[in-house]
Amino acid sequence: MSKNLTGLELARACAEKMLEDDDAAKFLDMSVDVIEPGVAEVRMSVTPHMVNGYGVCHGGYIFLLADSAFAYACNGYDDMSVAAGASIDYIAPARLGEELIAVAREAHRGRRMGVYEIEVRGPDGHLVALFRGRSAHIGRQILDPK
Amino acid sequence: MSKNLTGLELARACAEKMLEDDDAAKFLDMSVDVIEPGVAEVRMSVTPHMVNGYGVCHGGYIFLLADSAFAYACNGYDDMSVAAGASIDYIAPARLGEELIAVAREAHRGRRMGVYEIEVRGPDGHLVALFRGRSAHIGRQILDPK
Amino acid sequence: MSKNLTGLELARACAEKMLEDDDAAKFLDMSVDVIEPGVAEVRMSVTPHMVNGYGVCHGGYIFLLADSAFAYACNGYDDMSVAAGASIDYIAPARLGEELIAVAREAHRGRRMGVYEIEVRGPDGHLVALFRGRSAHIGRQILDPK
Amino acid sequence: MSKNLTGLELARACAEKMLEDDDAAKFLDMSVDVIEPGVAEVRMSVTPHMVNGYGVCHGGYIFLLADSAFAYACNGYDDMSVAAGASIDYIAPARLGEELIAVAREAHRGRRMGVYEIEVRGPDGHLVALFRGRSAHIGRQILDPK
Repeated sequence: MSKNLTGLELARACAEKMLEDDDAAKFLDMSVDVIEPGVAEVRMSVTPHMVNGYGVCHGGYIFLLADSAFAYACNGYDDMSVAAGASIDYIAPARLGEELIAVAREAHRGRRMGVYEIEVRGPDGHLVALFRGRSAHIGRQILDPK
Repeated sequence: MSKNLTGLELARACAEKMLEDDDAAKFLDMSVDVIEPGVAEVRMSVTPHMVNGYGVCHGGYIFLLADSAFAYACNGYDDMSVAAGASIDYIAPARLGEELIAVAREAHRGRRMGVYEIEVRGPDGHLVALFRGRSAHIGRQILDPK
Repeated sequence: MSKNLTGLELARACAEKMLEDDDAAKFLDMSVDVIEPGVAEVRMSVTPHMVNGYGVCHGGYIFLLADSAFAYACNGYDDMSVAAGASIDYIAPARLGEELIAVAREAHRGRRMGVYEIEVRGPDGHLVALFRGRSAHIGRQILDPK
Repeated sequence: MSKNLTGLELARACAEKMLEDDDAAKFLDMSVDVIEPGVAEVRMSVTPHMVNGYGVCHGGYIFLLADSAFAYACNGYDDMSVAAGASIDYIAPARLGEELIAVAREAHRGRRMGVYEIEVRGPDGHLVALFRGRSAHIGRQILDPK
């Protein structure tokens, strides 16, 4: 069935299917937008439970945001991918109330693995973190997994 | 006041203070045990909302667990430290219902930064993930922050 | 004196100055081309002493090539920068006789540090490795270091 | 034939075989000592061609040293392994004339990949760099490769 979809339609269908089960995205109230195969954008606002006593967002939540953009970007081909590894560099603090946006792009997609670069930016576009993820393809479909 | 505490007492006092505000630890029902300065152990069970449709834990939650052990290990000197960067390699999947344990140890502690190695293991001791975190000291106290 | 130079002229003057002392570049017969501030391109051919018994280039030399592109890209502002850390993912093997090209671009440049992304490609443009480097500014000039 | 060797004898036999072709080790005058399976120690002195104008060793050479310890540590089972990725954090500068020592230990060895931690230290034991390498097993033997 997926053969009749364009690349963009397929990527969006995979994202919709993933979103159904994505409790992290729901809990953190993330907004997911898959733009094209290999490219995804996820938004999240920094809420009180994400910050320390100084109003600064914990790095773990910034990682979760970038990790979500990574997951949606690498799973747009109906070829299920899992994270094999990731690294993050924190550039600037994110603060209570700010909306963060993570944009993922594909740096490489091979037969068995891929590498994705994710930028997390603050409301005025300043860089908050740089994330790089390695994906591994596990040989299952997303739309019709058996 | 902190001058009268042993290193171990100081580390535990810092951990108690941090725990008060640690919503991630509370939300994920983490159990934190600071063993000594530079060493911390955090436990977390894999719950239904952390897994995908195949019962496999999302990497982001394993990162959060390791990141917490990292935070408690690097903040036991009453010298506030934040994450400057981190990397994780996923070794084996974690499954629904398993209790994971993250053990952090100090690989380096300098004047302005530190490096910590965290191992995440499953219930039978097998390795689930390896995490490395870089901390930056920001020049504030934890017990008496002003 | 450097105030009369354009950004591009300054970046090229810094690269020329650095090249004078760059024994690694000379030994490995690298060809360095700084294209603009924050962007550099370095070429190197895989020679017999870089390969193992199967004609495959050791990862360490690919790292050296990417590291050189990183160094020239982050030092084009007459503000001396050193490597604070780096990571590399090897994507495809490089073979004896192939000319490799490393292209560095700036992902972030702040007051005290920067992050650079380097792609290493083979003769037909296929990706050989992805490198990310963190630079630290040490507060010295390059053209007139005192 | 390798079946009659102890683990230690096998690791040393693999290291001897690897050393024959190791031009990087020869060129940089490294001294390799495999201590046991999964553990290796490599020494290298900082020579004039490795330093910049301030007598500080280029990071690329410190990487090469750590990378060599990594290679000898992960190849001691007569099961050929190549680097899949690596990261390095530079902790303190190494200076002209200093002897550096890199000690590699196995953090994980699975069926198809491994993770190794390498510490690079200066003459008085202070930490110079921390390196982590991921190895991939390629299904070839070292002692009798066919």
